[in-house]
Amino acid sequence: MRYELYYWPSIQGRGEFVRLALEYAEADYADVARTRAGMARMERLMYDGPFAPPFLKAGKLLIAQTANILHYLGPRLGLAPKDEAGRLRLLQHQFTIADWLVEAHDTHHPIGGGLYYEDQKPEAKRRATDFRKSRLPLFLDYFEKVLAREKRFSYVNLSLFQMMEGLDYAFPRTMKAHSHKKLRANQSRVADRLGLYLKKRIPFNQQGIFRHYPELDR
Amino acid sequence: MRYELYYWPSIQGRGEFVRLALEYAEADYADVARTRAGMARMERLMYDGPFAPPFLKAGKLLIAQTANILHYLGPRLGLAPKDEAGRLRLLQHQFTIADWLVEAHDTHHPIGGGLYYEDQKPEAKRRATDFRKSRLPLFLDYFEKVLAREKRFSYVNLSLFQMMEGLDYAFPRTMKAHSHKKLRANQSRVADRLGLYLKKRIPFNQQGIFRHYPELDR
Repeated sequence: MRYELYYWPSIQGRGEFVRLALEYAEADYADVARTRAGMARMERLMYDGPFAPPFLKAGKLLIAQTANILHYLGPRLGLAPKDEAGRLRLLQHQFTIADWLVEAHDTHHPIGGGLYYEDQKPEAKRRATDFRKSRLPLFLDYFEKVLAREKRFSYVNLSLFQMMEGLDYAFPRTMKAHSHKKLRANQSRVADRLGLYLKKRIPFNQQGIFRHYPELDR
Repeated sequence: MRYELYYWPSIQGRGEFVRLALEYAEADYADVARTRAGMARMERLMYDGPFAPPFLKAGKLLIAQTANILHYLGPRLGLAPKDEAGRLRLLQHQFTIADWLVEAHDTHHPIGGGLYYEDQKPEAKRRATDFRKSRLPLFLDYFEKVLAREKRFSYVNLSLFQMMEGLDYAFPRTMKAHSHKKLRANQSRVADRLGLYLKKRIPFNQQGIFRHYPELDR
């Protein structure tokens, strides 16, 4: 099966969680919006289609929402078990990662995604402080425990790699103050395995979900 | 199968999306935290367990995250088809509802869930304005189209009922300015069918996800 991924071509964003799974499994796929005339194809599918990218075309299926796409791809790419209980557990983790990701995003856009960062700087500072002090440690501790329980490598490991990479980019000072051994070991393991891809992927940048504003990083 | 639902006993919150499915299907279930010593049982399960309520105990399975629970329950309660394509489509809708719900919540808590509303009132006003003007119409229009496409009644219909009820409670003036025929017809249909339950359920209140602050409603 040749998969077609549709996502904004200039940021890692939510699409990157799907790309990592496809890359790790060495799946046959096209990153459509990054090809010639691909943006026009993406826009055609969005008309009367999914609420937002990313979405995946797999034969006749058109699947949107990151965790939903990974739920579908998981067993097919060898990145999830095939039994229902195992799949539900991973989907639950992925949902919680999605919640965490929204909170990371909202540190720089607490008022509205359609407004500039510059128009919500004081609010962003307050929200980022709350995120760094209350929410981030909660999520890190939680997923450190999840990694201790989950013995089998899955798409959740790839997503946790991406969360750590993004948080290191956005909050380097804050992240240095945390040591979560299993999360860090998982991050290194994935970085080693995906080295070639990581060199050529879209870099983190100031249009993405993770952004580095030093004033938001303590 | 007797299901056990675990959720905070004093608010509708995310748990209500699961309650509605169980009630609609007349399933055999216990709303554990609302029974004697139930809160203690919930807290025991949360220790080393899910990130947050709601979660559902179904035999040996412990399933967290609202959309994940509904994905599991759907086919079992006759509220989702059994085929993969159909289930993925509903899960995708439920995910988008989850995103919408977070945005509705964040209108009154744009800085942090752990802080009081009173400590983030100016920010809440700005965020609520953005929600009412940009985000709410987008979601309403989107789900109006979804209802036109989805012919079969499912747990998504129940969740869209709950979204409309919650938004009517939180933003009565704003909601009166919108007319979305299919969303309103769906709301009436569910209200008729669940009349008895709706009379006895936990009412909307100022501790829940949907809160009515007149200053946030234009």
